[in-house]
Amino acid sequence: MKNKGLLFVVSGPSGVGKGTICQEYVKTHDDSVLSISATTRAPREGEKHGVNYYYITNEEFEAGIAKGEFLENAVFCGNRYGTPKKAVLEMLESGKNVILEIEVQGAMQVRSHYPEGVFVFVIPPSLKELENRLRGRNTETDDVIKKRLERAKQEFALCEKYNYILMNDNLGDALSKLEAIMKAERCYMPRNIEFIKKEFC
Amino acid sequence: MKNKGLLFVVSGPSGVGKGTICQEYVKTHDDSVLSISATTRAPREGEKHGVNYYYITNEEFEAGIAKGEFLENAVFCGNRYGTPKKAVLEMLESGKNVILEIEVQGAMQVRSHYPEGVFVFVIPPSLKELENRLRGRNTETDDVIKKRLERAKQEFALCEKYNYILMNDNLGDALSKLEAIMKAERCYMPRNIEFIKKEFC
Repeated sequence: MKNKGLLFVVSGPSGVGKGTICQEYVKTHDDSVLSISATTRAPREGEKHGVNYYYITNEEFEAGIAKGEFLENAVFCGNRYGTPKKAVLEMLESGKNVILEIEVQGAMQVRSHYPEGVFVFVIPPSLKELENRLRGRNTETDDVIKKRLERAKQEFALCEKYNYILMNDNLGDALSKLEAIMKAERCYMPRNIEFIKKEFC
Repeated sequence: MKNKGLLFVVSGPSGVGKGTICQEYVKTHDDSVLSISATTRAPREGEKHGVNYYYITNEEFEAGIAKGEFLENAVFCGNRYGTPKKAVLEMLESGKNVILEIEVQGAMQVRSHYPEGVFVFVIPPSLKELENRLRGRNTETDDVIKKRLERAKQEFALCEKYNYILMNDNLGDALSKLEAIMKAERCYMPRNIEFIKKEFC
């Protein structure tokens, strides 16, 4: 069948564990890579250009937007973040699945540019469990946690725009479900119809 | 999430190996069962009622059709074959995935009664390979093989009505892809949207 890679967009509320899932997935599956975002924020201690982010200037970022070079972009805490289209498309062409871990609004931007992407929304086993995980970090005040839970509820309301939900009950199960989704999507009829018409009809 | 089983309809041309895939699958996955068809044909040596088929009379079969008791039914070589709706729905309710191995026309009947089913079309690696497999059986004349290949081509033309294609390149890979499809379908958003709205919104 087709050897081109598939684009997976993974979203979900803060604290749900989507970052860990994506990072563990690419560690254990060499057919898949994480997309590296561009940002105008300064590199933190130990971060490397082309590994954690592509660090670019505000002018470069705006020129990129003007030329349509981002699959999605957003502002967060006064810094710009975006997914470089060219790097993603090249990886897909080379046959790798590309995983984008992004927010709901960014995901919807990606869908408008790349509707053949697969959109996965990660959920916790329950709202209570999400709250426990946020509290377990011991890094946020009650007020911040309350705001994150409110925001999570707004995000859940948008999750029907995604193709799959992935309940993160435990990491192993979540990875195995993500693997199944990737494998199944390769078999999805609309992705194979040209091949079948060419070879069998 | 939902604990109800999913209905999988598996079709594909004669000689593609769909029967072996389905039988092996249920042997190795106790969350899945094969549907047992009803037929008006007489049991062959060694066949058992309720194991290979439900053997019923023509009158019983016609009464069943009149009462809407079949998910699909067809005539083959002068005998009637049908999928008993009640048995399938009971297995689904009990949480088992149910696999129906049926022809394309029957599959389309099932879809009209049960659109939430998952429709899988098994293909060979190539038309040449299908011909080799049919010839390898050493049971059919050239003329019969030619007719089967013609019929296969007609079936391929209808395969876009299915959700997935499953290339039967080798049995192990085919079983692993079928397993992935089943797992991924459980995560499919429309199957979970009620649960999410209830629990998270």
